[in-house]
Amino acid sequence: MLPASIKKFIEGFSKLPSLGPRLATRLAFYLLNLDRAELASLIDALGGLKRLNRCPRCFFFKEANAALCTICANPARATGTIAVVERETDLLAIEKTGKFGGQYLILGELPEKGIFESTHKLRLAALKRHIGEGGGHLKELIIALSPTSFGDFAADVIGQEFKGLAEKITRLGRGIPTGGEIEFADEETLSSALERRS
Amino acid sequence: MLPASIKKFIEGFSKLPSLGPRLATRLAFYLLNLDRAELASLIDALGGLKRLNRCPRCFFFKEANAALCTICANPARATGTIAVVERETDLLAIEKTGKFGGQYLILGELPEKGIFESTHKLRLAALKRHIGEGGGHLKELIIALSPTSFGDFAADVIGQEFKGLAEKITRLGRGIPTGGEIEFADEETLSSALERRS
Repeated sequence: MLPASIKKFIEGFSKLPSLGPRLATRLAFYLLNLDRAELASLIDALGGLKRLNRCPRCFFFKEANAALCTICANPARATGTIAVVERETDLLAIEKTGKFGGQYLILGELPEKGIFESTHKLRLAALKRHIGEGGGHLKELIIALSPTSFGDFAADVIGQEFKGLAEKITRLGRGIPTGGEIEFADEETLSSALERRS
Repeated sequence: MLPASIKKFIEGFSKLPSLGPRLATRLAFYLLNLDRAELASLIDALGGLKRLNRCPRCFFFKEANAALCTICANPARATGTIAVVERETDLLAIEKTGKFGGQYLILGELPEKGIFESTHKLRLAALKRHIGEGGGHLKELIIALSPTSFGDFAADVIGQEFKGLAEKITRLGRGIPTGGEIEFADEETLSSALERRS
């Protein structure tokens, strides 16, 4: 009973995270009720994502016509400190703190089990090459992977691989999150918080 | 720090209902991490909404190259019974029940106060014209507007205007919703439920 173009929209958009068929249907009619210029501008905004590709150094996204992403191209960023993150949104979260002035490597979504896939290996190899070109070693490599069991495992492997290529290899501090309640912290977190007390 | 194309996407999509900047950002990177064919298919699906326009009879959406929407064009639907609904999604909700075999008029989103706007007036005029062409009167006009105070007011106005153009003018039954608890029903709903007991 729905026109084919609406069905196609709902089918495609309901697969996106946090959407689902109900919200996709509501969105379809919301969009159809916008004026044509507003709809055209959203179509344009989505289409614009095609103009992006990955930075060959850190693998964040950049406009396709730029050589590097805005972070790698920024001369004010410290080149000797690199944070390895899993996802682009992890990079955004770190940028938001305003406390990090180095560069990044986007490792790519880690699988739930198993070891690195070809994408991860390629990106780590690119980082090694980049370190080599920059004089052979970093001041600090921050392995900013989430402290899950696979994140920890991946961090160990990366730590081994980059030993000798960085003066310091660190991970993010663990402890009670701001606003978190001690009563509800798990044992591991609480142990880390005790060890790292200051 | 974000590429302009990502900023533009987040700016546009964060204005959509239930999205907001956080989810729009997450969506941007989700989409960028899809393979190119999947992204292209979503761009296509969104762009396809431009190919739709409104049915001149009921104002639901139809493919632009069709004369009427699939409901108005369906010879199996009763032409003498018309349900007036506010939104396209109200039509979908009624269709989902499988209990209605008539046709519709999409009135358009009602303003929170005031009377009908030009869109509503045009659509009601189109319905009158259509009733005229069809022999001058309907078997039943169901005013399926939500039982809010403005919905009630609008229903009264429509009821007056179409008096004489339909054998029966009805509204949806009011009562306790399925799964609802009597204890928590408001007085009006409970009064209606008592009056309409069966």
